[in-house]
Amino acid sequence: MSGVDEQVLAARILLGWLVEPGSRSLHALVAKMGPVEALAHITSGPMTDRLAATAAARLGGHEPARIVDRLRRQAERLGVTIIVPESPQWPSALDNLVRISQQSNEGQDRDTLPPHVLWLRGRLSLQEAAAKCVAIVGARASTSYGEHVASEVAYDLAERGWTVISGGAFGIDAAAHRGALAADGQTIAVMACGVDRLYPSGNSGLLEHIAGRGLIVSEWPPGAAPHKVRFLIRNRVIAALSQGTVMVEASARSGARQTMRRARQMGRRTMAVPGPVTSEMSIGCHEELRRDDEDRVRLVTNAKHVLEEVGSIGGDLASVAKGPKRAYDSLSPLELQLVDATPRAAGATAEQIAATAGVPALYAHATLPALELRGYVRKAPDGTYRVKP
Amino acid sequence: MSGVDEQVLAARILLGWLVEPGSRSLHALVAKMGPVEALAHITSGPMTDRLAATAAARLGGHEPARIVDRLRRQAERLGVTIIVPESPQWPSALDNLVRISQQSNEGQDRDTLPPHVLWLRGRLSLQEAAAKCVAIVGARASTSYGEHVASEVAYDLAERGWTVISGGAFGIDAAAHRGALAADGQTIAVMACGVDRLYPSGNSGLLEHIAGRGLIVSEWPPGAAPHKVRFLIRNRVIAALSQGTVMVEASARSGARQTMRRARQMGRRTMAVPGPVTSEMSIGCHEELRRDDEDRVRLVTNAKHVLEEVGSIGGDLASVAKGPKRAYDSLSPLELQLVDATPRAAGATAEQIAATAGVPALYAHATLPALELRGYVRKAPDGTYRVKP
Repeated sequence: MSGVDEQVLAARILLGWLVEPGSRSLHALVAKMGPVEALAHITSGPMTDRLAATAAARLGGHEPARIVDRLRRQAERLGVTIIVPESPQWPSALDNLVRISQQSNEGQDRDTLPPHVLWLRGRLSLQEAAAKCVAIVGARASTSYGEHVASEVAYDLAERGWTVISGGAFGIDAAAHRGALAADGQTIAVMACGVDRLYPSGNSGLLEHIAGRGLIVSEWPPGAAPHKVRFLIRNRVIAALSQGTVMVEASARSGARQTMRRARQMGRRTMAVPGPVTSEMSIGCHEELRRDDEDRVRLVTNAKHVLEEVGSIGGDLASVAKGPKRAYDSLSPLELQLVDATPRAAGATAEQIAATAGVPALYAHATLPALELRGYVRKAPDGTYRVKP
Repeated sequence: MSGVDEQVLAARILLGWLVEPGSRSLHALVAKMGPVEALAHITSGPMTDRLAATAAARLGGHEPARIVDRLRRQAERLGVTIIVPESPQWPSALDNLVRISQQSNEGQDRDTLPPHVLWLRGRLSLQEAAAKCVAIVGARASTSYGEHVASEVAYDLAERGWTVISGGAFGIDAAAHRGALAADGQTIAVMACGVDRLYPSGNSGLLEHIAGRGLIVSEWPPGAAPHKVRFLIRNRVIAALSQGTVMVEASARSGARQTMRRARQMGRRTMAVPGPVTSEMSIGCHEELRRDDEDRVRLVTNAKHVLEEVGSIGGDLASVAKGPKRAYDSLSPLELQLVDATPRAAGATAEQIAATAGVPALYAHATLPALELRGYVRKAPDGTYRVKP
């Protein structure tokens, strides 16, 4: 791509493909030796090195250079632009993710660091669109009330020249994108899979529209599958690219609350739309509004309220607050990755699962038996695993 | 009544009847010379003294002692108890109203001072019932959603031994009282008219129930009419007698917001229940929840949330906050009193209107022509006024 050294671009593409996003050790390596040297390091390191073992599992014996060629040809065919932190088109807002990672005490190896690469499909300039951008997030199992409000707020924001960013999912995400499109406005869908996947397929028409008139963004290369763990990691990009996040409907344990948390940690504005207290789908919003932080979640009922929050903040993101630790699931990130990577139908070996998950084979061997005991996967007599229905 | 000097009791009854509640000059007089001397002062003062002129208008030539006798006989007949600040049964929580008045910069002559007398009809001890007491207030034109929530919260609070206090009105008030009664709990209705009036008549069945199993409270004597201005003044008593106020549904300009304001000024907890942002009846709640004060209005969705607020506050009401000034209507308190006191059907003279309103005749003469110009009242050729339909 223009303005970026070819070697750096190739290295970033591979780093984004070999290691799942947010790896602290990989980021430390890149910070120390640059992407090209870091790539050489992990593709030639000993299998006792976690990153090297992870990369080896994903490569499965293939030549790194051939993989880059294939991905770049695929991107070209799809009209997909590739940007990396070294690109002049890279949005500086993503740098705030480094600050979260530094300030966080979470001790986990992923989730708060910026992407190595972004794959862009569509007609907008990401940099320009992100300059005036509000995230609208919420439940997939939304009610018609929530969809109505999300769509109205998105419409009014888009009409006033603001970009509406969301995750392309069913429910609130889709309503927000539709509202922005209805206003002939700008909208960005940040995906947890390749920009060619149009996932979920029930939204493929909408996503085609967004690709045609807005922008589809992903840190995973074309073809990448929407593993569960990717949705949560993806959320930090939605939070980072917008000046504020509005949560419209969310259950108590909604992933949208994690987007709110990331936004808060970056000093972005966080807002929530209330609803009937009798609705399960508003519990998450009400809990957010009941938070006792200094960085209060603001109650908003319309686009005017949203603009009161984001309209005045300028570029001052000085006060990065530290979020409290919270468990999103009883599975560790590693365990969740392995479960996600285990097929439902035909069984897969521990090595195959490690490759799909992007973790060292050793880890898969050590962890899958425990996951079997806990009832998440089932081992067949031939030694392969499948997910328990 | 037991424990109170007969002269003091009679004086307080008369002061409560001769001057509408909250008069700062009357309170200053009582504080300086005590209720008996204060009464003598205003019933013998020159008509240039506003209080004396007000009292004279209300007395209309009748003997003060005969009026006290009539009111006390009436109370006895109705089984109504009379308490005054000198009574051992007087709830000390009402003293906080003096602190509001001292701290307030509002410059108006009424609204924040404690009553001179309370008329109690029912079976509860006001002192005991107010010791663990939550106010639930809101719109008269409530939705079934709001009524459902008010009733549920009231039921759960009453079941846990908390008294539910409200205003006996249609809508949220009635739902709150009903919820408490359904739990066989304690409930108090603070009226803007005499405790015998059972206003509004559509709630007479409910109010009979409250009189039978709870308590009906008023600072106006039996027979007093529910003038509009009395509702707003009455709200301070609801706020003072409870440890916290929960607003369930309220339009943007609802009187319930004034109860919230008084509660806030007294350092009581203020809470609001959200609702659909598409509902007019939740706008007031959402606006309260959007306040930017230190004394934040807390979002609550159930009784558990309410108890988290009021359960821990104890008797510490040290931080009395000063509320911002806000106009509730384009009419001044005096103008509102006069309009309220003007009949719809047969016309009344300025003197008669002054007597009903409890203001000096001079004020009625000076103000009614302006109210006519502004379209609130109409003057007939014979010089009498009636309210414009």
